[in-house]
Amino acid sequence: MNEQQIKKIIRNVPDFPKKGIQFKDLTTAFLKAECNQWFEEKLTEHYKELGITKICGIESRGFIIAPLVANKLGVGFVPVRKKGKLPADTIEESYSKEYGIDTIEIHKDAITENDVVMIHDDLLATGGTMLAAIHLMKKAGVKKIYTSFLVELDGLKGRDILQNEAEVFSLIHY
Amino acid sequence: MNEQQIKKIIRNVPDFPKKGIQFKDLTTAFLKAECNQWFEEKLTEHYKELGITKICGIESRGFIIAPLVANKLGVGFVPVRKKGKLPADTIEESYSKEYGIDTIEIHKDAITENDVVMIHDDLLATGGTMLAAIHLMKKAGVKKIYTSFLVELDGLKGRDILQNEAEVFSLIHY
Repeated sequence: MNEQQIKKIIRNVPDFPKKGIQFKDLTTAFLKAECNQWFEEKLTEHYKELGITKICGIESRGFIIAPLVANKLGVGFVPVRKKGKLPADTIEESYSKEYGIDTIEIHKDAITENDVVMIHDDLLATGGTMLAAIHLMKKAGVKKIYTSFLVELDGLKGRDILQNEAEVFSLIHY
Repeated sequence: MNEQQIKKIIRNVPDFPKKGIQFKDLTTAFLKAECNQWFEEKLTEHYKELGITKICGIESRGFIIAPLVANKLGVGFVPVRKKGKLPADTIEESYSKEYGIDTIEIHKDAITENDVVMIHDDLLATGGTMLAAIHLMKKAGVKKIYTSFLVELDGLKGRDILQNEAEVFSLIHY
């Protein structure tokens, strides 16, 4: 498996969620064990020497591959969830989306000041959600922040708003 | 790690999401690599000889552990999502919840008649969502259905409504 082969497996869905958007549908890749094993292996390889202590996944597609890397690295998994889903004390961060404000949260006791975190999501488009997740980790006072994506849409320049605050790594580029 | 040790790590949150409910918060277990590795190992052990061809996870907490088992068994992962999230053609199933109707979906081309599926969710309470997921798999015409949970709340008898239609297996019982 390699980037070119996976790109042939990822489905392009025109006009989803709205007209003019070419949606990259990763479910056709998740359907194949070889793809998920490649995602796991490539991300583990990249992060294994960096002293990562926690892997965070952004709800909900970021939950799919992040725990694979966490188990390989032998570190815990932290879900970054939409507001109201986590039952205990949280810290939260709000950000603007096209049609309003969204808020994401983590449990207050999930992250400590000694943590080196890798935050994972499936796709980097404009980077708004990941930027909010980075700010959440900064509120928690972590030592260092890495971010990873399966797919990056280079043309949308999400990387530009993230890379001043954290390292950005993506497996597949469009 | 064993069931008793994990039960000490799972957090009980009283009155969430509403008064009178003792919520079993698995995020304190997901925070520890030893717990996630135990979940992965125990589920893989149980399912490895059963000819499973696809692992399905129910959005969104079911996405966390299901792909670990899928990768270990060398089979694909299928997300069962809330209506409107999947971009291509879907089959759907609606079910009653306390305050209205919910609908879950899978991609039409994610499951075939030759599949033996294991559907995973984190927690079995009354079993309504899993029953809908089972009916979704029956609509897709699969050969055989297994269901798994990390935690089962025995007192709510969700198992009773599921086990006529699929095998039910849970790692931890309350």
